[in-house]
Amino acid sequence: MRTGEAVKQPQAQTKEALAQALVARLGEDVVLLGDQVAPYCRDWHGDVQSDAVAVLRPRTTQSVSDCVRAAAELGLGVVPQGGNTGLVLGGVPDTPATQVVVSLERMNRVRSLDADDFSAVVEAGIVLEEFKNKVAQAGLYFPLSLGAQGSCRLGGNVATNAGGVNVLRYGMTRELVLGLEVVLPDGRIFEGLSRLRKDNRGIDLKQLFIGAEGTLGIITAVSVKLMPAPEKTATALLALSSLEDVIALYRHARRQCCDLMSAFEFMPPEAFVLAAEALPDLPLPLDGSHPAYALVEISGSGLVDIDALMAAFLEEGFENGMVLDGVVAQSQAQARNLWLIREGMNEGQAKRGKHLRTDVSVALSALPAFVAEAEAAVMAALPNALCVSYGHVGDGNVHLNVLPDPAADGPQTDADIYTAKGAINAVLDRFDGSISAEHGIGRLKRTDFEARLPDVRRDMLLALKDALDPASTMNPGCQLDLLRNAAG
Amino acid sequence: MRTGEAVKQPQAQTKEALAQALVARLGEDVVLLGDQVAPYCRDWHGDVQSDAVAVLRPRTTQSVSDCVRAAAELGLGVVPQGGNTGLVLGGVPDTPATQVVVSLERMNRVRSLDADDFSAVVEAGIVLEEFKNKVAQAGLYFPLSLGAQGSCRLGGNVATNAGGVNVLRYGMTRELVLGLEVVLPDGRIFEGLSRLRKDNRGIDLKQLFIGAEGTLGIITAVSVKLMPAPEKTATALLALSSLEDVIALYRHARRQCCDLMSAFEFMPPEAFVLAAEALPDLPLPLDGSHPAYALVEISGSGLVDIDALMAAFLEEGFENGMVLDGVVAQSQAQARNLWLIREGMNEGQAKRGKHLRTDVSVALSALPAFVAEAEAAVMAALPNALCVSYGHVGDGNVHLNVLPDPAADGPQTDADIYTAKGAINAVLDRFDGSISAEHGIGRLKRTDFEARLPDVRRDMLLALKDALDPASTMNPGCQLDLLRNAAG
Repeated sequence: MRTGEAVKQPQAQTKEALAQALVARLGEDVVLLGDQVAPYCRDWHGDVQSDAVAVLRPRTTQSVSDCVRAAAELGLGVVPQGGNTGLVLGGVPDTPATQVVVSLERMNRVRSLDADDFSAVVEAGIVLEEFKNKVAQAGLYFPLSLGAQGSCRLGGNVATNAGGVNVLRYGMTRELVLGLEVVLPDGRIFEGLSRLRKDNRGIDLKQLFIGAEGTLGIITAVSVKLMPAPEKTATALLALSSLEDVIALYRHARRQCCDLMSAFEFMPPEAFVLAAEALPDLPLPLDGSHPAYALVEISGSGLVDIDALMAAFLEEGFENGMVLDGVVAQSQAQARNLWLIREGMNEGQAKRGKHLRTDVSVALSALPAFVAEAEAAVMAALPNALCVSYGHVGDGNVHLNVLPDPAADGPQTDADIYTAKGAINAVLDRFDGSISAEHGIGRLKRTDFEARLPDVRRDMLLALKDALDPASTMNPGCQLDLLRNAAG
Repeated sequence: MRTGEAVKQPQAQTKEALAQALVARLGEDVVLLGDQVAPYCRDWHGDVQSDAVAVLRPRTTQSVSDCVRAAAELGLGVVPQGGNTGLVLGGVPDTPATQVVVSLERMNRVRSLDADDFSAVVEAGIVLEEFKNKVAQAGLYFPLSLGAQGSCRLGGNVATNAGGVNVLRYGMTRELVLGLEVVLPDGRIFEGLSRLRKDNRGIDLKQLFIGAEGTLGIITAVSVKLMPAPEKTATALLALSSLEDVIALYRHARRQCCDLMSAFEFMPPEAFVLAAEALPDLPLPLDGSHPAYALVEISGSGLVDIDALMAAFLEEGFENGMVLDGVVAQSQAQARNLWLIREGMNEGQAKRGKHLRTDVSVALSALPAFVAEAEAAVMAALPNALCVSYGHVGDGNVHLNVLPDPAADGPQTDADIYTAKGAINAVLDRFDGSISAEHGIGRLKRTDFEARLPDVRRDMLLALKDALDPASTMNPGCQLDLLRNAAG
């Protein structure tokens, strides 16, 4: 394995000289310098402010290729960036003197949308919500739905294999991708914008780039599956006696509702307090007096009566005693308000200050035991902390967040966050869980990732990287620390 | 790129000496020799009879690893094999003096089945139908369904990313896989039997092995998603005026039936003649007098009335004139008989003698134009041939088969098949279609695959192979001709 030998050494050139060399090669239209660089080097939460030699903003695939070649020739690492809404520093430079950001924000066209084929070909820089709206205008639906959809860009969603609230019905981003166009580390273009549903011509190379967080190339365009628009959606907020019951209800719902559920989220009672803190005017139809809550959405089009299905499902739930209380939205506005409780819960956590956000997954059947044990481990170590566990039940995906003692000072808060993460990860490891269900590894989770990486996988990842990006041009420092691996 | 340099040279040992060396290393229980080898070296259709140094039949993952290491040490290529039902010679040796078959048939246990988690962990050698039955006993459903399910084995399904009749609802095999255990070319074991639904810890290495046809390792076990059992299934056979109308009905059905369709197959009128030739006693409720037919299945469980949904859907179809005639199965036996028309159509083709079978895909919206143009091209070249086009409408997947002039002799039949394939592929290339929608490349389609392989992809595939299997131990000759690529 040659990785490490091949990792390039920073050129002995000043940042200014490198920047001017980029302008000379790529033109002023493409290169941002000076004060304009900072916004692209800041993470979504504002925890990190980095820097870069320049930000490159190509308008075409060929220009992306030119950017990659220029960076490689100058010995610069390339950090691809979409909407910069990632939560793990995958798109934020970590060695400012030798990295450039390549932002896809100016590549945002819908190249084609074929309603008869239930497919579209779209450039990587389109904002997810804008794309969803264009698809809706054609009477169809692109199901990827997540909090950042007003800012995130589709290429980033693919590079991170984004999840969101509709995964249980429609799958992760990977399952929505039909094809990719990618600029490779040597500047060549992988032309794979297939719209075929079935194509077993050997190894499916596009899979390599989905979830690779830009470490093997820059995704410049995507062909995706579209769905019939769900004309009818029924949304309910339900109170239950435990997380076990939430899971049991989910299992029951899959069978009874024919997999027509499009979302099934669970929330703790604290959600109502936190949402009220963030959104004081939000109507709260339930009051947080029960141990567990589920936010359930059933959707569909055509001949199935979605409202009747939800009503029959809830009637069963009340009759068998599993559902203790509940409310079904009577309008789109009411449904939106139910979702705002979930979103307000997140904002409420942010308003309380610095806290631990996790994004873990375990087997569905292990979810209640995991949450109980992990919360107990946190509380044993930090008796004055507050655990807020919520997430995507059907996917076994929990965001087990920890708000440290509000009386603690800054250094103590940081120490508590570190302690809480250690306590949760120790339990997670016993459950064979994942430290990153949806958000990726980036730079933030790299150390925790590498600490858990079996030798066989590490060797395979290094061999892959070496085979496809021998000079380590693409997103160096993301996912793996190649220099450390080479030395170790 | 080092591929080619590293391709091993056959050892200068006799087949007998090699076989005895394998017995010495692995024991008599594992190694089949002599007459017992032939059945493992014959393809499903009986067109090819090859040979091998030996057939190895390990019982455990560790034993698979021992087999791979022993073969590698002796300079032998390893041809992994499941049920040997593949249609492209992916599991049949092509250089008998330097290859062994590793059959997974004795690794056939269900390691675990967790109904609460909708998942199972199962060894690669289990027969698909046996696994489906075990899952059904637990009240669940494994949706992979294909003609060979009584003989094919799950590891082969994963290695070839098998499709089948339920893809439009449940996806290809890739979308059913949660994790894999794989013996790598160097004998190490990739332990990836995760049951997590969401896991974004970097590049998803298991994707490399799905569809690789054993060229990067031997899949020894699989963790898979399970579904609620569809308690109710409605099946209908419909007559329409054209393939365009079949596609239009499919689009309409997706919306009207909420994606609850589990199958939507199209058939030509010749299906009835061919099925009657193969199954003379099969009742034929329609007579083949219309230009196009659709076999439609809607299924589900719980609170959705599937029969009412089918009835309402058909009522619409008759009212708007799209459906000209039709029959809905009134019992499971009747439903089975409708499917037997489709299966009988295949058997009927086989009974007429040697013919061209294709497995191509195009974009859904291009399907009618492709079939019309490809059939016209074949008929222009071979006026006495019969085209039989059928397939999985929702996936854009057609089996456009050609039965040559029955009056032709053997050599002329072979020539006609070659001519027909060329005519179809020329049209397919204009439609950016795939020469292998479901069946894979194997050895049968390798030349056609390589002839259409863009340089960028070929270089990536060779780099991957070189990175993960530098000695080319795994299934040499399958998918790519490494020696020729190295020389070229």
